[in-house]
Amino acid sequence: MTDKIRGQSLCKVKESGAFIRVMTIEPKGSGPLNGLSFAVKDLMDVAGLKTGCGNPTWLKTHPAAAANAVCVDQLLFAGARCVGKTFTDELAFGLDGENAHYGTPLNPRAPDRVPGGSSSGSASAVACGIVDFALGTDTGGSVRVPASNCGIFGLRPSHGLISVAGVNPLAPSFDTVGILARSCDVLAAVASVLLGRDIPATAAVERVYLLKDAFEITDEDVREALAAPVERISNHFQAKTRTVSLRDLEEDPAELDLRGWYETYCRIQWAEIWSCHGAWVEDAKPEWGPRPGMNFRLVKEFDRSVVPEAVRRREAYHNLLQRLLGPRDLLCIPTTPTPAPVKGTLGIDRRVDTYFSRTLSLTAIAGIGRLPQVTLPVAAVQGAPIGVSLLASQGNDAFLLAAARSVM
Amino acid sequence: MTDKIRGQSLCKVKESGAFIRVMTIEPKGSGPLNGLSFAVKDLMDVAGLKTGCGNPTWLKTHPAAAANAVCVDQLLFAGARCVGKTFTDELAFGLDGENAHYGTPLNPRAPDRVPGGSSSGSASAVACGIVDFALGTDTGGSVRVPASNCGIFGLRPSHGLISVAGVNPLAPSFDTVGILARSCDVLAAVASVLLGRDIPATAAVERVYLLKDAFEITDEDVREALAAPVERISNHFQAKTRTVSLRDLEEDPAELDLRGWYETYCRIQWAEIWSCHGAWVEDAKPEWGPRPGMNFRLVKEFDRSVVPEAVRRREAYHNLLQRLLGPRDLLCIPTTPTPAPVKGTLGIDRRVDTYFSRTLSLTAIAGIGRLPQVTLPVAAVQGAPIGVSLLASQGNDAFLLAAARSVM
Repeated sequence: MTDKIRGQSLCKVKESGAFIRVMTIEPKGSGPLNGLSFAVKDLMDVAGLKTGCGNPTWLKTHPAAAANAVCVDQLLFAGARCVGKTFTDELAFGLDGENAHYGTPLNPRAPDRVPGGSSSGSASAVACGIVDFALGTDTGGSVRVPASNCGIFGLRPSHGLISVAGVNPLAPSFDTVGILARSCDVLAAVASVLLGRDIPATAAVERVYLLKDAFEITDEDVREALAAPVERISNHFQAKTRTVSLRDLEEDPAELDLRGWYETYCRIQWAEIWSCHGAWVEDAKPEWGPRPGMNFRLVKEFDRSVVPEAVRRREAYHNLLQRLLGPRDLLCIPTTPTPAPVKGTLGIDRRVDTYFSRTLSLTAIAGIGRLPQVTLPVAAVQGAPIGVSLLASQGNDAFLLAAARSVM
Repeated sequence: MTDKIRGQSLCKVKESGAFIRVMTIEPKGSGPLNGLSFAVKDLMDVAGLKTGCGNPTWLKTHPAAAANAVCVDQLLFAGARCVGKTFTDELAFGLDGENAHYGTPLNPRAPDRVPGGSSSGSASAVACGIVDFALGTDTGGSVRVPASNCGIFGLRPSHGLISVAGVNPLAPSFDTVGILARSCDVLAAVASVLLGRDIPATAAVERVYLLKDAFEITDEDVREALAAPVERISNHFQAKTRTVSLRDLEEDPAELDLRGWYETYCRIQWAEIWSCHGAWVEDAKPEWGPRPGMNFRLVKEFDRSVVPEAVRRREAYHNLLQRLLGPRDLLCIPTTPTPAPVKGTLGIDRRVDTYFSRTLSLTAIAGIGRLPQVTLPVAAVQGAPIGVSLLASQGNDAFLLAAARSVM
């Protein structure tokens, strides 16, 4: 694979538009990832290089990294070879992959559509076959959405299980380091290294819950395309499959709608983003693309008085998921409500363009619940890939990966 | 309280040496913290001020905060009044509170001894009666140790439950925002706001586990001083109290010694610290006090090849605690192995001065286990305070606080 990136597939690398920098960092050890190549989202530190975070002002105003991010080191010590750093939406605040400064990485499965973001280059590099896997970050969907869009596997781990040291924050209550891969076996092998946990050979699944509310907000053709794969998943586990609705789970059904999860997620996320990046934004006055410019104006002007209630609500939702999901249970939802948008069609204002609110209503479930989620490339609509997701209870990432691997 | 800080007790403020800055930020709302005053460790952002992190070079090389840390906003919206920012060990990497640039905040209960760190000023401000409570951060003991040293209450929450947005990181896999308070009621009220969870009126404790290994590494007089309080705690809960040893809990007893927990903790912490701060250290070449200078040299030169094995071991230890502690169980340990060291007696090299390794062997338990821990001021030795700690299973912070409140 690395030979390819060194030689005949340099034109593939260029065509993908996925890499801000191609280089080789040889493995620092030998282990379960021997022979595998990977790319690193340019939100994560590689020693000696500046981490650009998808924004030219950020690149200019920060010194070179002195050390690798801990997760990068874990992979190198396990035998993997790093072949480059990949594009990201500016400061990882985006779901689209259209970077006004650096372009839009190729979605090889649907070239007229966006790859999705913010781990756009990592998804593209994997989907184009340039690397075996790539590191991304996932705060509100930044691994899961591009994985679904590009027809590959993606993992968002339980919050806090994979080290984020050396990874630029966005909203720490939701930030995670995730993995994108072309095979579920590679996904599981990489996850095992980063989590420091063995992935069992089999998973004795007790129940599979299909979340009705989540399937209801997808496009009709997505729902239809996912019907057969979802049935296959249920049958595969021979588990008791049960369709549940948020409204069945809580006393106060008025409160329970995925719209509420989306709003709760955004309120905390927006406050955290400004707490993390406001000082730099005000000081450096960065050059933004149109959508990030609007995004950062929104978080700056955001009324923070709603945060305490959002935190309370987050915990109530979290508690609801904890009560629902036992350690051997899975939750099944569509990864995204639609396939990847056609390039250039997304609006500038995320409050208006419903792509963002609909997508975040699904991705917020794992964020709010601190749950691990794997997206599986199981279907296509309008010629574009679409993923289905399995989630497990908090901390049961190894079980989830075993279950996902057995499905595939 | 705020009137006091404005008026007659300004000399108390000065005497404490706890504050880098005294100011008033009025509450932004009304709620459960009405009438309470608090101080903020100068590792956390307050809008309009530079966050100094206990180091003059850091102060010089960073712009003013644009927003409050999310946790600071949560308190202001709940009715509390902020009266100042407090000293910290440099970049929060310390357990002592002796800051070569800014001095050592007063430990009013033992004036010849250090207050402990790194949340030294926050502990001092609370212990001196200047504020009702204070925010600290706790990565490896930075709330629990000064709380124990100064004879006050301290909470380290479960990892990930209280927002760290706007709080300077040290080692993200262990970083938490904690609370220091003079009463357990205030501690619980503040925690309820930050956690977004109600603290129940009572706690039905099933089991109290006394960790033998932890009591064994304390000084003999500490063990004697804690004996009666520990018995009171056991009796109070009428729970089945059971003495356990790490060696009873795992198949491979050779691996199980708190020394192993300490080493595992340090390996991950050191790698993460350099990943978080190495770029700034190499670029800004900060002026350090002797102990932080040595600390940062150690993390820079640290052999990172041991990190993957440390992560695996951390997960194995974490798993052991998860199997031991049910949702209604408590673990009881001494907070520190000795009372606060006498000022000026600590060594420069934390690999040599056993104060650090012994103390971290106790504080690493919550860090490794991602567990919440409350330290209670229950005893004194050699005229200096010493705390006992209760820990609960991960995520059961509200239960732990209810249990702690019922003890007091």
